[in-house]
Amino acid sequence: MVLDAVRECVLAVGVRRTTLTDVAKRAGVSRMTLYRRYPDVDALIRDLVAREFGAMVRAARDSARGGVHARARLVATAAGIAGRVRRDELVRRIVGVDPELVLPYVLDRLGGPQRIAVAAFADAIAAGQGDGSVRPGDPQQLAHVVLLLVQPFGISAGAVTGTLTEADLDRELKAALDGYLRP
Amino acid sequence: MVLDAVRECVLAVGVRRTTLTDVAKRAGVSRMTLYRRYPDVDALIRDLVAREFGAMVRAARDSARGGVHARARLVATAAGIAGRVRRDELVRRIVGVDPELVLPYVLDRLGGPQRIAVAAFADAIAAGQGDGSVRPGDPQQLAHVVLLLVQPFGISAGAVTGTLTEADLDRELKAALDGYLRP
Repeated sequence: MVLDAVRECVLAVGVRRTTLTDVAKRAGVSRMTLYRRYPDVDALIRDLVAREFGAMVRAARDSARGGVHARARLVATAAGIAGRVRRDELVRRIVGVDPELVLPYVLDRLGGPQRIAVAAFADAIAAGQGDGSVRPGDPQQLAHVVLLLVQPFGISAGAVTGTLTEADLDRELKAALDGYLRP
Repeated sequence: MVLDAVRECVLAVGVRRTTLTDVAKRAGVSRMTLYRRYPDVDALIRDLVAREFGAMVRAARDSARGGVHARARLVATAAGIAGRVRRDELVRRIVGVDPELVLPYVLDRLGGPQRIAVAAFADAIAAGQGDGSVRPGDPQQLAHVVLLLVQPFGISAGAVTGTLTEADLDRELKAALDGYLRP
């Protein structure tokens, strides 16, 4: 599969040093075949990141199914996404080798994964307002705030690991989100 | 004053293009005099950032003095710092011209300003545990969590300004911090 080949390339050499030729070779397809679907490496990386992040969101949501109300499920899902991002081999590799690629999405604008997360949070917030477990407010706005609160627990944990363990980060993020969303 | 000269240089050309020679010229001191106190531009920038950030923390704390208990003062101080960072001309210039300089402090380790903020938060948390307005927990750990929660409201606001205004960011950060710290 092409995206598996991209993933292997990124794990091996990082994003910047991955080429369409390498990916084609690893995937066992011709460069032309690949080129017809993906004009450049950026497009490949975008699809890979969307696939991987989508899978993290689904896994986090699945393991949060048991929550007693929509807020509990949302809190568990959001903390689950942060934990998965924090531990993800591909994220760690990108942040380690090509950190400057992450920068625009921290400072300037939302990337694909952030928009996926915001959409998932907004749905869950609307559901929580429906069952009375989430405080009132525009779901889109609340979802963007939840993104701001969650994001550093996914990508900035390295700055605080001397003080906060993996379990601390998970527990405290849940406390913060629950406190923020409670009616 | 030397640090005022550094500030002018950074506002004019960014961090990377600021040189000791430019700073000496603007400050009206000889290059040797400057060099004796500051071995390189990095040291100058560090002192400037510490001065500017220290002033933001003090201003935020001063305008939060009226809070009814330590938690209210801490929440107002933390949101005040985030707002000041967000609107600060120097921060905007550094993030605009040399964003890669900010990156290590987002991903890897705490810089001087973050340590100043954590120390201020930890003191306020201990005071809040003293007057019963902040929930129990190790003040150092809680202070690091507060940093993670506050930081994106200072530096990542650009990614969400289509959805959240300045006033929204301020109000929602206060709601999140209050929810997190309430006993």
